Amino acid sequence: MSNSVKIFDTTLRDGTQGEGISLSVEDKIKIARKLDELGVHYIEGGWPGSNSKDIEFFERAKQMTFRNAKITAFGSTRRKDSKAEEDINLNRLIESGVSAATIFGKSWDFHVHTAIQTTLEENLAMIFDSVKYLKSKGLEVVYDAEHFFDGYKNNAAYALQTIQKAQEAGADWITLCDTNGGSLPGEITSIVSEIQNHISTPIGIHAHNDCELGVANSLAAVTAGARMVQGTINGYGERCGNANLCSIIPNLQIKLNFDVVSSDQLKSLTLVSRYISEIANMNMPVNQPYVGNAAFAHKGGIHVSAILKDASTYEHIVPELVGNKQRVLVSELAGQSNVLVKAQEMNLDFGKETQKTKAIIEKIKDLEHQGYQFEGADASLELLLRDAFEGLEEIFTLESFKMLVEKSANHAVVSEAIVKVKVHGHTVYTAAEGNGPVNALDNALRKALVQYYPDIQQIHLSDYKVRVLDEKDATAAKVRVLMESTDSNSTWNTLGVSNNIIEASWFALVDSLRYALISRKRIDPANNENVERFGLMNH
Amino acid sequence: MSNSVKIFDTTLRDGTQGEGISLSVEDKIKIARKLDELGVHYIEGGWPGSNSKDIEFFERAKQMTFRNAKITAFGSTRRKDSKAEEDINLNRLIESGVSAATIFGKSWDFHVHTAIQTTLEENLAMIFDSVKYLKSKGLEVVYDAEHFFDGYKNNAAYALQTIQKAQEAGADWITLCDTNGGSLPGEITSIVSEIQNHISTPIGIHAHNDCELGVANSLAAVTAGARMVQGTINGYGERCGNANLCSIIPNLQIKLNFDVVSSDQLKSLTLVSRYISEIANMNMPVNQPYVGNAAFAHKGGIHVSAILKDASTYEHIVPELVGNKQRVLVSELAGQSNVLVKAQEMNLDFGKETQKTKAIIEKIKDLEHQGYQFEGADASLELLLRDAFEGLEEIFTLESFKMLVEKSANHAVVSEAIVKVKVHGHTVYTAAEGNGPVNALDNALRKALVQYYPDIQQIHLSDYKVRVLDEKDATAAKVRVLMESTDSNSTWNTLGVSNNIIEASWFALVDSLRYALISRKRIDPANNENVERFGLMNH
Repeated sequence: MSNSVKIFDTTLRDGTQGEGISLSVEDKIKIARKLDELGVHYIEGGWPGSNSKDIEFFERAKQMTFRNAKITAFGSTRRKDSKAEEDINLNRLIESGVSAATIFGKSWDFHVHTAIQTTLEENLAMIFDSVKYLKSKGLEVVYDAEHFFDGYKNNAAYALQTIQKAQEAGADWITLCDTNGGSLPGEITSIVSEIQNHISTPIGIHAHNDCELGVANSLAAVTAGARMVQGTINGYGERCGNANLCSIIPNLQIKLNFDVVSSDQLKSLTLVSRYISEIANMNMPVNQPYVGNAAFAHKGGIHVSAILKDASTYEHIVPELVGNKQRVLVSELAGQSNVLVKAQEMNLDFGKETQKTKAIIEKIKDLEHQGYQFEGADASLELLLRDAFEGLEEIFTLESFKMLVEKSANHAVVSEAIVKVKVHGHTVYTAAEGNGPVNALDNALRKALVQYYPDIQQIHLSDYKVRVLDEKDATAAKVRVLMESTDSNSTWNTLGVSNNIIEASWFALVDSLRYALISRKRIDPANNENVERFGLMNH
Repeated sequence: MSNSVKIFDTTLRDGTQGEGISLSVEDKIKIARKLDELGVHYIEGGWPGSNSKDIEFFERAKQMTFRNAKITAFGSTRRKDSKAEEDINLNRLIESGVSAATIFGKSWDFHVHTAIQTTLEENLAMIFDSVKYLKSKGLEVVYDAEHFFDGYKNNAAYALQTIQKAQEAGADWITLCDTNGGSLPGEITSIVSEIQNHISTPIGIHAHNDCELGVANSLAAVTAGARMVQGTINGYGERCGNANLCSIIPNLQIKLNFDVVSSDQLKSLTLVSRYISEIANMNMPVNQPYVGNAAFAHKGGIHVSAILKDASTYEHIVPELVGNKQRVLVSELAGQSNVLVKAQEMNLDFGKETQKTKAIIEKIKDLEHQGYQFEGADASLELLLRDAFEGLEEIFTLESFKMLVEKSANHAVVSEAIVKVKVHGHTVYTAAEGNGPVNALDNALRKALVQYYPDIQQIHLSDYKVRVLDEKDATAAKVRVLMESTDSNSTWNTLGVSNNIIEASWFALVDSLRYALISRKRIDPANNENVERFGLMNH
């Protein structure tokens, strides 16, 4: 049996059934391009029979060139008691201009009776006629046997007949679907193995994640002989999502030695996953396997001290194989070794400067004791270390700020901030409104600084988290504010701690701007005049 | 072999190794209580040898009563070339006062050489001595064989010797750990099966999710004979997290018919999962299997029309088995059943008053759309229902408030609030300072009300949480504030939502005081003169 497994991506079709996902035609085009770069073999673009947005996608896709992937369109078997040739759905598939079409039909007798309400015989005819018609038009046909596993468990003989009909009609692939996501790997293994005694057409698997087994079920099917895997990027999809290709591809290729994509394509996995989450406007879970920001992040002190000796002590693969990288989180659980790693990343001479090293570790411990937690705030930590080792000039100094929130009965609440800062010897005194107090403060500070540092216009606060550190005396307790900021190139995190949420936000805000201006200078050595102007030279 | 599987929860220990998770002692106590309600058999509370916060947890846990769970403490085998009796770590376990302890030791020869840098013989002695010492002190001992599967694949004979040493020394459980999360279910099945030819001690499994196979690997181990599963709520943990108990428990119990928790305990699963995500201040993925808000949500038109005929067409289990519920995303019905349950608890004639029922459900839907979420704020929901069904008089009306935060270089930040309210026809105008803006507002409001409602002196805000609802435009985004309040008798939760964190806090604060004064009147009929004075009679 071939060692090659085909990847059938349905992010653009089944993926959009997930809660919170809605893609424009433009979004879909961008995603299709990335999927092609990743090397997937089929991209299911949509259901031309069900909505006009999808028809437009296929129109545009026709004019594009894909290096690796075939674009496929999705539909269902013909309606009951009608002719395939006259079925709008099937004809839309043909008109979409794709070279491969996927249609689903019923395998579960219960569904034939309850959902489409017809006879078992008519359902078999619907499958046969539909596949036959598409084949007669020269299309490659993927037949999706919906609810196959549930159907097989309930009435094996009938479920088998349905896919035998698809085979007789000439289907190129028969995909066994665990549509409700309720099957276990053991069931998948035995049913996929059994089926191959009766079917010679290549088998595919389409799994869902309702038992958190979507990846395991896909692997089980491939191990039992399936050679196509349907799934979505980041596991997007109805209910608990489809099987996650971002885990399936590296598992098949790195762990099970199947031939899936090239090793260069595999290296693009992390980027593709994050790019698509951006386009889909969905938050990536930091702990997502293989591609998440924390997938190779180490927090426990024992783990950190071991990976310094050899990364494979606590990493199951080399992160770079999937385009990800190791991170060391600095936290109360960690010893000194986490700080050392961070300093190494930054090329600071940490080992030799023992005096400075001791002092900075004492300072970090002290800050952590106050409630600072640097694991989520790499940028604040970097500023701290650079300050200690290199000395950083302040980009401005605060003289004062005032923040006012005012609410009257039946009037919208108003937030204003007044900021007085000294920049390059000049005092700047300015005020701004905002949607809330932190927004007002952010606006006022930017307004004061923008004439000196025009680059801050490109910075945008993308996440803001507040954590109350000790609830004993809740409204008077210490709070930790974590801010995420982005510009066109990168994302960085800063934090602030105070009894006062406004002051904590101020600290995080100031760190965010400082970091942006300092790192901007660093990565672009051509910006020398800026370095001068910003007063950011080391000294 | 017994059909019963023990659940060993390590949310409080391994779970806190996850990025972004940090729990106070108070958080840990709250979570332990919930875990006990869920019916887990072991709660690993922390590592008393590694930090003082954990020591405090065990001090407090000693004074609590747990109905189902044993509290366990975590540590490692003794240091190399030393005596178990003199090992600080091991002695801390004993001093923690728990009846069960978990210690981990090395199974992988590579780790013995590289990480702890000793001989294979000394490592065996470390395991034997440590287990023996804890057993001699009367403790139940769970021996965690770290990296067992990697070790076994590399040097099966040595890996086996390590757990045989633990068995000889009297370990009650031997847990096989896939510490790096890199193993596949097939490997787990064969290794767990093989091990049982050599070991008679009951076997546990500790899996990680680095290949998105944490749940599958745990099930594979149990199917092969393991009878304890270690994992965390919502799969929190280092890197990609630990095996997720919220999926493992229902998979074992509903799908594989193991005896794990009672069916009533299983019904609390969704609530426990969401409660712990709130306490840990971690966003719940909506598509989380079994317990996520979208786990039984239907969006596709075909799916929706089929589930209206029979829910089992697209649901793998009845959602109520795990305390979750069906949602149809095209016609949002969320919240209704919660509301009905709450109304029943309050003895409101919900069924009959159809006009009022419709109106209040519309209102709640609208508020949920704005970002309100009443699951964590029973008191605010009760106020809403009482208002609609009985009519509640306001305890005061707001004319205006002003909140000022001021900071100058080298001076402590100052927060002041000015409040103008009408109480019983009198305008009260007052001001107060606070440790932060919400504290200042709280102080000013109490100062204005206390002469009319002296009871509010007994009320104390015990928790305060802020969640940013839409991070797209971070500092201008909507925020939800959740407040917990207590008096001598009880605890209640209220919430507020606004673009402005100060206004959201104000809403939650006002609800807290309203609820306190209203329920005080209700539960204490002797307080009739107060009822009169408070103007809280129904009308």
